[in-house]
Amino acid sequence: PASGRLAAMATQCVQAVGAAGADAKIAKGTRDYGPQEMRVREPVFAAIRSVFKRHGAVEIDTPVFEHRDTLTGKYGEEGAKLIYHLADQGGQLLSLRYDLTVPFARFVASHGLDKIKRFHIARVYRRDQPQMTRGRYREFYQCDFDIAGSHALMVPDAEVISVACEILGSLPIGDFQFKLNHRGVLDGCLELAGVPSGKVRTVCSSIDKLDKEPWADVREELVGEKGVSPDVADAIGRLVQRRGEPMALLAELESTSVFSGSDKATSALAELRVLFGYLEALGCLHRISLDLSLARGLDYYSGVIYEAVLLDGAVAVGSIAAGGRYDSLVGMFSASGAKVPCVGVSIGIERVFAIVEAKARAADAATKALSRPPVDVFVAAAGGGVPLVERLRLCKELWAAGVRAETPFKEKLERRWLENALEAGYPYMCLLGESELAEGKVTVKDIANTEQVTVDRADLVATLSRFGVPVDAME
Amino acid sequence: PASGRLAAMATQCVQAVGAAGADAKIAKGTRDYGPQEMRVREPVFAAIRSVFKRHGAVEIDTPVFEHRDTLTGKYGEEGAKLIYHLADQGGQLLSLRYDLTVPFARFVASHGLDKIKRFHIARVYRRDQPQMTRGRYREFYQCDFDIAGSHALMVPDAEVISVACEILGSLPIGDFQFKLNHRGVLDGCLELAGVPSGKVRTVCSSIDKLDKEPWADVREELVGEKGVSPDVADAIGRLVQRRGEPMALLAELESTSVFSGSDKATSALAELRVLFGYLEALGCLHRISLDLSLARGLDYYSGVIYEAVLLDGAVAVGSIAAGGRYDSLVGMFSASGAKVPCVGVSIGIERVFAIVEAKARAADAATKALSRPPVDVFVAAAGGGVPLVERLRLCKELWAAGVRAETPFKEKLERRWLENALEAGYPYMCLLGESELAEGKVTVKDIANTEQVTVDRADLVATLSRFGVPVDAME
Repeated sequence: PASGRLAAMATQCVQAVGAAGADAKIAKGTRDYGPQEMRVREPVFAAIRSVFKRHGAVEIDTPVFEHRDTLTGKYGEEGAKLIYHLADQGGQLLSLRYDLTVPFARFVASHGLDKIKRFHIARVYRRDQPQMTRGRYREFYQCDFDIAGSHALMVPDAEVISVACEILGSLPIGDFQFKLNHRGVLDGCLELAGVPSGKVRTVCSSIDKLDKEPWADVREELVGEKGVSPDVADAIGRLVQRRGEPMALLAELESTSVFSGSDKATSALAELRVLFGYLEALGCLHRISLDLSLARGLDYYSGVIYEAVLLDGAVAVGSIAAGGRYDSLVGMFSASGAKVPCVGVSIGIERVFAIVEAKARAADAATKALSRPPVDVFVAAAGGGVPLVERLRLCKELWAAGVRAETPFKEKLERRWLENALEAGYPYMCLLGESELAEGKVTVKDIANTEQVTVDRADLVATLSRFGVPVDAME
Repeated sequence: PASGRLAAMATQCVQAVGAAGADAKIAKGTRDYGPQEMRVREPVFAAIRSVFKRHGAVEIDTPVFEHRDTLTGKYGEEGAKLIYHLADQGGQLLSLRYDLTVPFARFVASHGLDKIKRFHIARVYRRDQPQMTRGRYREFYQCDFDIAGSHALMVPDAEVISVACEILGSLPIGDFQFKLNHRGVLDGCLELAGVPSGKVRTVCSSIDKLDKEPWADVREELVGEKGVSPDVADAIGRLVQRRGEPMALLAELESTSVFSGSDKATSALAELRVLFGYLEALGCLHRISLDLSLARGLDYYSGVIYEAVLLDGAVAVGSIAAGGRYDSLVGMFSASGAKVPCVGVSIGIERVFAIVEAKARAADAATKALSRPPVDVFVAAAGGGVPLVERLRLCKELWAAGVRAETPFKEKLERRWLENALEAGYPYMCLLGESELAEGKVTVKDIANTEQVTVDRADLVATLSRFGVPVDAME
């Protein structure tokens, strides 16, 4: 009992310390986005939206939490452990979304759609071990593009990959490659190697580690932990370690009849041939590496699967985009069981930002673009006789005309405010002196061009506009 | 034991039924935003951002969940019950944000800021009784604008109110009014009426209901449930039921010396006089009604408080914007206890959308603006001899030039596809026939102007651009 009491006291101490320090802290694995981060992110999001819209995708949004049942059984052995659950507060059992794909399938079923091409930019939640420096968070943005509906074979698949290539190719992140495989080919590999059907999923989740671990380690896991016989493991190794230029590898696989014993694999290879033809027409076949070891851990994939990685070895951020075909997921949510085939891609934008932000910060040291003032016009008073309320009145005139403007919230403007404003880099200034105020005039300064003019208040906005100040600025 | 087993079976049945039906359903009180809703919302958000930026605010974002300690004790008696908690999955105790104000104060403290003018557009979470038709959800957007830092008295308060007026005034929601009060005036009312200090908070939360309930009901609650003596209740009633045009009511309160017995109230009235002067200069004093019954349920307010309501009685959506001054909140999160005074406003945009969406839908019946095709160019083939891959190749050329384009994912395009495209309202069409394909040409149609021209493929983008198609479209 004494040791019990001690343990309880120790727990209380730890809780007290935790509580005292926790208040100003942020939840583990999450981050704030300050003004500078937002300035970097905003144009990247805008560029991504613009590509999505160019391809005719419409935007949707879904709730951040879903019924727990909607999410369970969709993310494989590893994923299931990482879902955030809400406390049962006497209502429904809810969980935070783990990705945007399952909510999308639920959306398609809920609204009884038979086709849609949509994009969705939103945050998802995973109770993973955060690695902030590598852009790995527990709360992070995904930018998803998906095509639902029955369409000509492999055409939506090709467009989805092409959209991802357009986006990644437009970002300053260096060269990248799509590793691509087909669930039918992978199933064929396991079938031919003699993996019993009950072990297919667990074997897949070992193979999935081949991007991070050498074959020897994966083989050991298969034989040692998962009870696969050494012969079967070696057969798996021979099959799944093939990778290379898509057309050449496809020709080799077909000519050597490696997969002739598996109908699944044979028909998957035929689909890949069609896909590669379209990817060639869309100018992105050179980005593809056919990689028979790619497994993708999620349960819902049913056809082609892919994952983009950066080729610049210096930046170890893992995959920066991933996706695949999932033809049965919508049917799982549909009351009538109606199947709506789908294919999509998710841009792992957080990892992209980890790279873009570092570059922007480096550039900012020179250009100060990230720390420029947030408005175009600084409103100042010359001399002590102009009260703050008159500066506000002037701001009001500018705001009403859509001009971005601000004035310091100080009764008296000392000389150093003017100096600070010049140093901060405001491009324009409006100056009110006592005589200007009496005569209904104002002085406008174009700071970069050291030009200045005193005009009637009624002509202020027109003057600023002539100087190049954005007026009626939307954004 | 038999009845126990029966109860257990009944529970299982209920759970099974729940699970079967729940899959395609959305969590209670939440909603999907489909393409049409997003089309309505996007320009509204853009307009709001534009006003925030015009006033020099920078954008931030914070995580959707915070440490539970960060949120507790900030939202009053009623609010505390409505916070969504995350399940304790062997980590920290976390809760979903209830508003954007407390996370903002935590942000200011976490980053050691002494001033910032920021906006934040994001979703917040309240386990309230949803009333969807009135725009009341459990997950909903707020658009917040706040000014932190020590500034000239009441100037930031005036700018915050002015920003809210600019935004609400620019939205098609009809006339609105800001009810405004000061916590110091309210405290003075309770002090003068003789409310014991231990009952101040609970009395305030009754007074807060005066916007929905008549005084007689509130009085009954005070006397019957909260143990306030009838005399004290009547004294409260006489004081807090005053409302009216700000300058006139202020003059009346000052001349009749109603509050001369309360230092708190007297100094609050002096602050209001300063505020009204600035609001007059900013052109929005006519929007204000000084209303001594306004209490605002939240714990953190310390000065002026306000709440905007629509004046068109037909639309009962409750308050559409609200805020106030909270000078002690940042200090609660700061390790050094450093105080950073703050004032802000939150636009309850969901209620605004409930109105805007209804109007947009009504207008759409005539204009079809919401259901127009998502791209500018429809790519089609004339005759059966042009394979789908050639249409894709043409799309690729358009996408690469930043043109919004799409083609049906069908091997063969029947005549009805062309008819459908015309009916859907695509403004432009690119047509590939066999002879065009052979000669490296393409036909471009301007559908509205029934104009068409056949050009070299190399001149396609220039031709579209001349026709008025947006090229290199960012958004």
